[in-house]
Amino acid sequence: MKTIETIHALRTALKSRCQGTIGFVPTMGYLHQGHLSLVERAKQECDTVVMSIFVNPLQFGPGEDLDRYPRDLKRDQALAEAAGVDFLFHPSVSEMYPTEPLTQVHVEKVTERLCGASRPGHFAGVATVVTKLFHIVAPDRAYFGMKDAQQVAVIEQMVHDLHFPVTIVPCPTVREPDGLALSSRNVYLSPEEREQALVINRTLREVEQKWTQGHFTSADELAQFVRERIQTAPLADIDYAEVLTYPRLEKPGAAWKEQRLIVAVAVRFGKTRLIDNVLLDGRGEKSCSEQ
Amino acid sequence: MKTIETIHALRTALKSRCQGTIGFVPTMGYLHQGHLSLVERAKQECDTVVMSIFVNPLQFGPGEDLDRYPRDLKRDQALAEAAGVDFLFHPSVSEMYPTEPLTQVHVEKVTERLCGASRPGHFAGVATVVTKLFHIVAPDRAYFGMKDAQQVAVIEQMVHDLHFPVTIVPCPTVREPDGLALSSRNVYLSPEEREQALVINRTLREVEQKWTQGHFTSADELAQFVRERIQTAPLADIDYAEVLTYPRLEKPGAAWKEQRLIVAVAVRFGKTRLIDNVLLDGRGEKSCSEQ
Repeated sequence: MKTIETIHALRTALKSRCQGTIGFVPTMGYLHQGHLSLVERAKQECDTVVMSIFVNPLQFGPGEDLDRYPRDLKRDQALAEAAGVDFLFHPSVSEMYPTEPLTQVHVEKVTERLCGASRPGHFAGVATVVTKLFHIVAPDRAYFGMKDAQQVAVIEQMVHDLHFPVTIVPCPTVREPDGLALSSRNVYLSPEEREQALVINRTLREVEQKWTQGHFTSADELAQFVRERIQTAPLADIDYAEVLTYPRLEKPGAAWKEQRLIVAVAVRFGKTRLIDNVLLDGRGEKSCSEQ
Repeated sequence: MKTIETIHALRTALKSRCQGTIGFVPTMGYLHQGHLSLVERAKQECDTVVMSIFVNPLQFGPGEDLDRYPRDLKRDQALAEAAGVDFLFHPSVSEMYPTEPLTQVHVEKVTERLCGASRPGHFAGVATVVTKLFHIVAPDRAYFGMKDAQQVAVIEQMVHDLHFPVTIVPCPTVREPDGLALSSRNVYLSPEEREQALVINRTLREVEQKWTQGHFTSADELAQFVRERIQTAPLADIDYAEVLTYPRLEKPGAAWKEQRLIVAVAVRFGKTRLIDNVLLDGRGEKSCSEQ
């Protein structure tokens, strides 16, 4: 594996080496098994795998955790190499933003709710940096985890609208054995917070089961159920808990049971904000894309 | 020359044919010698030349001339073929916007003045459609006329910020023998308007000469001179006449004579809005890029 820090060097390396397809796994580093599962999938499907590690300032708001976002390049390099990454792109902020950036990619509607509402400007930052990375790496396929389901929806919308010549491959959320969705931010949690955070996955699994049984009579009732269950954890501070259509992320209408739905939550435990979700298909059964 | 109407067919044709570099000339059709000069330059520098003809609804505001914008595909095909275009891409609106477009590319600052101020949303429409076309055509070089100097500035800023793998080639404005800048919109002009529209070029040439002679003591005085001269034409209705730095399009500071300046005007004659400009370099001499 080669670690590369400049755009020019990466383009040169990819041009000189790559005959076949390029699979791309964009990350903010501090890798966990979720990221590595994306690499595994990319290796199955592509000839060359490029991973980027870049903590993108543009997608963090004021007061968010940009400065304390966990970083450990040496560890990441070892994990990426062991997973079979060919090129690790690790640019500096000044390499990615050499001058004041004046251009942003804005995606409407799908960015308005959930994390888009809680974190103004977040998805413009995501869409913009992913556009930049796509232009630098020129991948055939790009891999994203479904834990960030809204991010997947935003990027798929952007790729569709702007005709990017890339296929987006959403991949299942990877979880700890006890069910907590893997996140680089999990290291922030105190032991007590970590224990109570299990309420999220427990609730989503319960929702899945009750949905299959036809338990809920409306999307509002479903969302209310989620909020009540999560609030049983004393340290849980709900940012949002919503039931929306997926991938458009709109309020479901009267025919809500016929639509593909997402149950999405963001919950703070102390200073740490965790997100998770489950997709429900339109027939009261668990959706196959979340298998 | 092959005329192609779908994205898929264009990509297939370019993939199967093109070994070398692709030069791209995006247009809204109703071709004139200005467009054809871009093709000529592209042919000198690239192996394959793609021209697009697409009147992009996204860059027209309400009340603008989208519906009456002149169109003549047969004539354009003959001109493009004679000029040596290899592929003429002529998509329908539904091919370019198959679903409600939710994604836009926004460029700040350089879009705020001149046509950006007169035509809100215009440059977001331009930046968005150029992004789409770049993703579809994947050109090595793209050619734009300097009559639309702000468009060139916006696209160069966007390409820089988003790391598009393309070189933008600005090309000199082409003029009628009597000095009127070529524009597809010139066909709208009545004989009397056409005659009076010459005041624009006459004024810009006079500015150039006086600038070389060190005539002006401030940018404001220069702009005032331009306005007064243009107003000598009774049918001229000035939309703007400004002196700004180029390509950032900011108000020039105290050291205005050291900066690269643009004198840019938009003037209505009847229903027809014409734009033109001249670049002045920082030493009181005509800039070489406008030769």
